[in-house]
Order: sequence, then C-alpha cells, then structure tokens
Amino acid sequence: EEAEATTHAEPGQKYNTLLVTCEDGLRVITLNRPSKKNAITKEMYNEWAAALEEATADPKTVVTAITGAGDYYCSGNDLSNFMNIKPEDMQQMALDARDLLKNFVASFIDFPKPLVAVVNGPAVGVSVTILGMFDAVYASDKATFNTPFSALGQSPEGCSSYIFPKIMGYTRASELLLFNKKVTAHQAKELGLVTEVFPNDALQSEVWPKLQAYAKLPVKSLVYSKALTRQTELETLHKINAAECERLAERWVSDDCVNAIMNFFNRKK
Amino acid sequence: EEAEATTHAEPGQKYNTLLVTCEDGLRVITLNRPSKKNAITKEMYNEWAAALEEATADPKTVVTAITGAGDYYCSGNDLSNFMNIKPEDMQQMALDARDLLKNFVASFIDFPKPLVAVVNGPAVGVSVTILGMFDAVYASDKATFNTPFSALGQSPEGCSSYIFPKIMGYTRASELLLFNKKVTAHQAKELGLVTEVFPNDALQSEVWPKLQAYAKLPVKSLVYSKALTRQTELETLHKINAAECERLAERWVSDDCVNAIMNFFNRKK
Amino acid sequence: EEAEATTHAEPGQKYNTLLVTCEDGLRVITLNRPSKKNAITKEMYNEWAAALEEATADPKTVVTAITGAGDYYCSGNDLSNFMNIKPEDMQQMALDARDLLKNFVASFIDFPKPLVAVVNGPAVGVSVTILGMFDAVYASDKATFNTPFSALGQSPEGCSSYIFPKIMGYTRASELLLFNKKVTAHQAKELGLVTEVFPNDALQSEVWPKLQAYAKLPVKSLVYSKALTRQTELETLHKINAAECERLAERWVSDDCVNAIMNFFNRKK
Repeated sequence: EEAEATTHAEPGQKYNTLLVTCEDGLRVITLNRPSKKNAITKEMYNEWAAALEEATADPKTVVTAITGAGDYYCSGNDLSNFMNIKPEDMQQMALDARDLLKNFVASFIDFPKPLVAVVNGPAVGVSVTILGMFDAVYASDKATFNTPFSALGQSPEGCSSYIFPKIMGYTRASELLLFNKKVTAHQAKELGLVTEVFPNDALQSEVWPKLQAYAKLPVKSLVYSKALTRQTELETLHKINAAECERLAERWVSDDCVNAIMNFFNRKK
Repeated sequence: EEAEATTHAEPGQKYNTLLVTCEDGLRVITLNRPSKKNAITKEMYNEWAAALEEATADPKTVVTAITGAGDYYCSGNDLSNFMNIKPEDMQQMALDARDLLKNFVASFIDFPKPLVAVVNGPAVGVSVTILGMFDAVYASDKATFNTPFSALGQSPEGCSSYIFPKIMGYTRASELLLFNKKVTAHQAKELGLVTEVFPNDALQSEVWPKLQAYAKLPVKSLVYSKALTRQTELETLHKINAAECERLAERWVSDDCVNAIMNFFNRKK
Repeated sequence: EEAEATTHAEPGQKYNTLLVTCEDGLRVITLNRPSKKNAITKEMYNEWAAALEEATADPKTVVTAITGAGDYYCSGNDLSNFMNIKPEDMQQMALDARDLLKNFVASFIDFPKPLVAVVNGPAVGVSVTILGMFDAVYASDKATFNTPFSALGQSPEGCSSYIFPKIMGYTRASELLLFNKKVTAHQAKELGLVTEVFPNDALQSEVWPKLQAYAKLPVKSLVYSKALTRQTELETLHKINAAECERLAERWVSDDCVNAIMNFFNRKK
C-alpha cells in the first residue's frame, strides 16, 4: 500500500498546481504553489475542481482532505489573474472569471464524500469562504482567516453570504463578510468555522491518524449521511453561488475594485 | 398538591417503560429501564410518543421534562430490536422500524408545549439527535453525547441531519453525524446542543426548582411563542424525518449494518 | 468636518426622542430619553423608523450606529403605551400597536446599509430582539439582555422567533424567548447575539474609531454584500414579522397580558 501511495504521488501526475495522493481510502489534495503562498491561478481553480471530480469517481476514495504546501494554507485568488488586461478586455475577463469561480464553487456544493480541510497556515479569500461547506476544518493555531472583500471593492463568494450568517448570525458574519476582520484559528472556532484547533507542532501528527481512521468507515453510510445533511440546501446553495458570482462580475470592473487592486500592486513595488 | 403528585406517580399507571408524574404544571417523563441503561425498545418508542400525546392533551400540563432513571440518560435504540429476525423477515422488519421511528420523531416535531431534557448521564443515538428539537437541555457534567451512526453502518435520524448543521454548521455537525465523535456535556454546550451544564451533584437540586418556576408561566404565551419559533420549519422537519427514516430502512438491511451489529454482539460475549 | 457634525447634532433637528449626527460617513442615532431609560414611546417607534429611512436616503451615510443616552441602552416598549386605555378602545389600540410595531420592525428588515448597535447598558424587549438583524453588536460588559415575553403574557417580536433559533438553536433560544432568561453581555456573545464585549470604560474609545474606519469602506461593496447575505431571507422575515405582530395583537388584549401589566404598575407604586 505504501507502493500505491508512492505511485500516486510520483512525478508525471496530471496536475501542475496540486499534489494528490490516495492511500487506504484517504485522498490528500495539497495546494502546491508554496513560493506564491498557494495563491489560486486560473489553472489551479480548474485543477482543484478536476481533483474533486477525480475523488468522486474513484471508488477507493472515502475521505478527501485539502491542505497547503509550505507555511500558507492558501492566499486566495491570485491577483495577477487581474493583471495585464487591456481595458477593452475587462468586461470579457469579468464574465470568464465569473464562470470559472462559479464552476469551482459548484464542485464543493456537489462533492458527495466527506471533505476535510487541514489548515496549516494563513487562509485568505475564497479559500476561507468555501470552508463553510467542508465537513470538518482542522486548523493550526498559526492559521488565520481573512476575507477582505470590501477592502478590495469586492463582495463575498463561496456561498459564504448564506452559510456564514447561518452558523454565526448576521451580527458576527458581517464582521468577516463586510468589515474585513481577520480572525485567529481560536476565534474562527468560536464562530463555528473551524472544528478544532491544534498547536502548530502537533497538527500533522494529530490530524492524519484521525483522518486515516475516518477513511476506514463504511463509505455508503458516510455518503448517504452527508446527502441527508445537504438535501434541503443544494438548490439554495447553487442559487447563492450564481448570485454571488454575478455580483462579483459587476464588482471586478467597478472603480472600487480597479482602484483597490492598483493600490495593492503599487504598495508591493 | 403533594397528594396529586403521588396519585400520578403511583403503581398501576399505564406505562411499562416510563414513570410519569405531573405536579403544579410540571410533567416529568422518566425513562425507566435503568438495568438496560434506558435503551429504547419498541414498547418504549410507542409509550414515549403516547406520553407526549398525554402531555399535549392535559390542560394542567405546562412544561414537560424528560429524564432517565439510574446512571444513564438513554443508551439509544435497543439493538435487541434487531435480534432474532429471520432473513426472510428482514425487509419487513426494516419497514416496520421505519414507521415506528418516523412516528416517534414526529411526536417531537409536533409537540406544542415547552419540552426540556434533564440529561442525567450518557446519551446515545436517537436520544441525542432529538435533543435539537427540545426547548432546553440541562445536562450533568457526567453526561456524554454519542451518535455512532456510520460505525454501525447507519445514518442520522431525529431531524439531526437538518438541525445539527443549522446550529453548528457543517464543519462541526459532521464530526457527530458522520464521524462518530463522542462529546462531553461542556463540548455539547459549545456546539449549541446543551443549554447549560451542572455539576452532577447539583443537577437535581438546581434544575427542578427552575422547571417548577417555568411551569407557573402563562401556558398560552408559552405555546404561542413556541409555535412562532417553529412555524417556518414544521413542514421541512416532517420531510427530513421521512427522508431520514427511508434511508435507515435501506441501511438496516445493508451488509454495513448487519456486519456492524453482529460484531457488536460478538464483542459483548 | 467638525462643523458638519455640529450642524447635524444641533438643536432644531427634526426628532424629539432621538439625537442624530452624521460625520464622514458614520451616522449615529442616539435613543434620547435617558430619564425614562430610553423606553420606546409611540413617537420614538415612528422617529426611529424615520431616522433609518433618512439614513437610507442620504448618499453620504455609509455606516449607521444605534446607541442609548445615559446608563441604559433601551428599556423596550414603554408600558405607558398600554395605560389609560378605555376597555372599549382596547381592541383598536391592539390593532394600532400591531401596525406600529410591524412597520418599525420592517424598517430593520429592509435597511440596506451596515447597521451596528453600540449597547452601552441594559437592553430589554424589542430593543434586544431586533439585534439579530444588525450587522454587528458591540456591547459594554455592563449591558444585559432581557426579553420577558411570557412573564408579561406576551410573545416574541423583532423576527427573534426566527433569527434567535437560527443562530442559537431551539435549545438555547427558548430560554430567552419562552423562559424570560436575562443574560449578560458575555453570555449574549456566547449565544451569537453580541459580536464583541468591551469593558464599560473602554467601550466609547474602542468602538467609535472602529466604526469611523468601517465608514470609509466603499459603500457599494458594503450594500451589495449585505444584500447578498439577506437575499434568501427577506420574504421570510416579513412573514415572520407579520405573524409575530398578529399574535401580539391577540396577546395584548388577553387576560395574561392585562393582569401582568397591572401587576407591573402596582409593584411600582
């Protein structure tokens, strides 16, 4: 079985931005652009969605985990996705990005097997908002969670506009979704977004054996149980996703957003 | 009034598996199979539902409390319900059990008066899942909460597949509903399933006076207020209940479940 | 800009029961009947709703905050609204009060910009229940939260019968909505009703700079983001509001309520 794991992780695999392994029912998808803090390029959006489809299709996969290579979990949308676009191409870029994001988020809404995040470091933007759809989120105490939408002239995605108020109430969700509040792992646990927090040194040694045990459970009971928990919301979540992406397509070409992103890159110079 | 309480609790009452008393507006239903950790037999399912109907019908009953005799609150479904069934009777047994469970859970969905659990010790399975429909859950610090559905090849009931994610989010509910996590009373309070935790020695002396006070409140305000809190969900909860029971009817005759239950009894030998 | 603030706060403004200022995008509505613990008279219901309309219409207003003058945040419905009513006018009074309340609550459901409460002291009744619709609730550690509906023969309003169970679960919401439990600011934070608690001495110095910063964010991103978080619930909330107010119109003329209010005034003598 070690041989099999090695096989799956060996060079020549189909993803440029991800590492994917599968052993004894546990599939691990590692975001693998550590030098870029695992920022999500267009390629990574597509590969991540494809990796979830692969997990769905593989009968040997029981539990799927997402984690990040290096110190970051994921720094969110790679803002270089917005660079070097000619003014006349802006509108089309926004529509393309809308469809890309909608498909990406839909792959989480529809993912039928248990999905767990192992948040090894800071998480930003869409990598945070989609966590509300995961079945468990285990976080290092060095992880932080930041969704700076209005600071960038944007608006929420990942169905967070629906799921965050559901679990936190409007009174707490709005700090994250409207007011750009960055929270610690312990605060995110209080908010119901994180399942459990581990000391950074213990995260790997504590979480993986737990997930290996989950992966030995009967897959039909897991899939059917997850389906029960989602049955009343699937349609709602797809509608929310569409509305969020439509709004972002408008935001991305707005002065609010264009100015904020220009300021971001000017600060980096 | 003490005389009346004695009258209600005296031998000759109509239930074999429950003790029922009613005094000054406070009705107490005690699960009374302490030698079996108050495991729920077919008879107890029916008697518990009947006792709720009686509470609804009695104009003197304002608040109804559920508690367990002995050290356990309730060890869940009595697995002997699954024993000594001939292979050719399995399918019918599953359909009968589905109907039994659906009616039992429906009696909680529709119960119109305040309903409080006094969780005196460990709670397992359906005795945990239905707690999400109670108006308050007061627990001993020796209580634990365990819903080992997938470990037994089964799936959630008691509308927990809807109510647990509603109050905890998917990220926390799935640990209980998919991954068999047993939680302490304090953890269950953090999750929103338990209202308040008491030191085991103080549970009885603290909780009953509180419930006696609640039972003096105007019953119409309580009933109308509870109806307001449930109005948007009644139909949803009945649909969820039906879907959960339908899935269990399939699970109970699956290899996953049959093997898990055989292993359970073999371990006990 | 100080001049502008002074202008807005100067005497001669249009409200008798409120102070309203607006500076650099931050509008502050202060409940201003400190000698009556900011109890809400009929006039204040109407002025508060009008002040929200004014905030909506003013293009310079980005964030709106509500706070109370003096030691109280708000002691809820002024029970003198129920006084000196002739028996033959009771029914009409109840219908008028129903419409007044429904319009008041609707102005919070529909308010499109970020809305924040700065709870400087005790909060009672409808001033508590509407908090579930706010985008943030910052509270002094001297604040308390009390909704004594059934003790007064009444029932919940402010959409709390829907929003409180959504964020707390039935098991915790019912203590507030059915059983008259008064909670501290820290308890209200645990319940998800309060966003953050500040030492009373630090409340003013900590909260206002935070809100001034929020008021500099791009208003379109805030308004569109808030709209996304509310889109699935607007219709539901208006239905809940109507059902709650209809029930209260019945409660206000009930013996339960009339007796409770008579007892209240007798105790005060």
